[in-house]
Amino acid sequence: MGSGWDLSSSVEAVIAFREERDWGQFHLPKELAAGLAIEAAELQELFLWEPAERAEVTRNDSERLQSIRDELADVATFVIMLAHDLEIDLAAAVDSKLIANGRRYPADEYRGSSRKAPH
Amino acid sequence: MGSGWDLSSSVEAVIAFREERDWGQFHLPKELAAGLAIEAAELQELFLWEPAERAEVTRNDSERLQSIRDELADVATFVIMLAHDLEIDLAAAVDSKLIANGRRYPADEYRGSSRKAPH
Amino acid sequence: MGSGWDLSSSVEAVIAFREERDWGQFHLPKELAAGLAIEAAELQELFLWEPAERAEVTRNDSERLQSIRDELADVATFVIMLAHDLEIDLAAAVDSKLIANGRRYPADEYRGSSRKAPH
Amino acid sequence: MGSGWDLSSSVEAVIAFREERDWGQFHLPKELAAGLAIEAAELQELFLWEPAERAEVTRNDSERLQSIRDELADVATFVIMLAHDLEIDLAAAVDSKLIANGRRYPADEYRGSSRKAPH
Repeated sequence: MGSGWDLSSSVEAVIAFREERDWGQFHLPKELAAGLAIEAAELQELFLWEPAERAEVTRNDSERLQSIRDELADVATFVIMLAHDLEIDLAAAVDSKLIANGRRYPADEYRGSSRKAPH
Repeated sequence: MGSGWDLSSSVEAVIAFREERDWGQFHLPKELAAGLAIEAAELQELFLWEPAERAEVTRNDSERLQSIRDELADVATFVIMLAHDLEIDLAAAVDSKLIANGRRYPADEYRGSSRKAPH
Repeated sequence: MGSGWDLSSSVEAVIAFREERDWGQFHLPKELAAGLAIEAAELQELFLWEPAERAEVTRNDSERLQSIRDELADVATFVIMLAHDLEIDLAAAVDSKLIANGRRYPADEYRGSSRKAPH
Repeated sequence: MGSGWDLSSSVEAVIAFREERDWGQFHLPKELAAGLAIEAAELQELFLWEPAERAEVTRNDSERLQSIRDELADVATFVIMLAHDLEIDLAAAVDSKLIANGRRYPADEYRGSSRKAPH
């Protein structure tokens, strides 16, 4: 079983689950990207019409937190399958994008600001 | 720098990046869920009007693969921030959901089938 | 040119635009549904990190309103193409769904409440 | 009751439905945009794992067509509410965007091509 931020054994479990069901045949990258977007919408639906409360408040509502955890797990499962199938090093991809974002959003210029940088 | 499936050091980098810019104030869970869904749509857009090719084919188009890697990193960054802020153990969440899905989709019954299980 | 809520001539224009470019071949229902979701995310992106202000306030920001109008038009164009190709009577579909929602959400029971009805 | 592409009476019905339930207080533009994206994902979910069949084939599956019609109605209802509240002339918005798209995608240059125009 995985733990925390090391997803190695979760990835193995996800891929084994898929192989046992012979579902890899349906999991073309385009379909996985669609599935990921659909799961992200289901996660977002948990927040629709709700006040935009701080994380501490959400954490104290254990039933609600459990629903969010379940939907976030669905999203993460699609991220894992897509990265696995395309042989994308997920940690390295996040790091590279962070470096690019650091150039696009210099800390001094964008501190405390939510505006978008020009493309 | 992170590597592979262990996101520990990427998470640290993502949170440090955010603190340097004082962006945590904008990152209420509801906003992060919205941002995640928007990034997932940007990832999906890379596949719109494209044939649903196999992962091997996508992997061989290095320019395209780089775009997918960048968008998947954006999605993963929102997953990381949401899990971090809500103190969700991501690996454990994926594992738990897999167990629940295993009950919902017994391998013998759903092998080779893409149909949905009843709720 | 269309005007207001009667989309008849806009539909004709959208379909003629598509035929002039021979794009119907790409517009399978599944692709149109994907395109619609992607455009909806682009619309939503205009609201990300922004305060959830009342409609009157948004209406008074003419540049912002123009961006929203453009993205909403993209969404509506996909709705039109999908309804056209599947020969769905859009007005009748909205009316039928409203009747079903009226049964699911009796006015007396749900007045002033944002909670979801059980399925 | 509305009919075809003239949504005038459907709009009246949607707004009356909302007023009877006093739901306008929840329907800030940002929330409506989120709701629209979520409904678009539910529509898209009907196509997930399914072959990308031609519209004629989808039309002949009456049960499936009914599900698509219902979800498309949900999407259209959010489009209607957002356009109504922001006083956007939907037909004129579609027409304007079509003119802009005509400049961006000249028919001679993009006939039979699914590639994106540069921004």
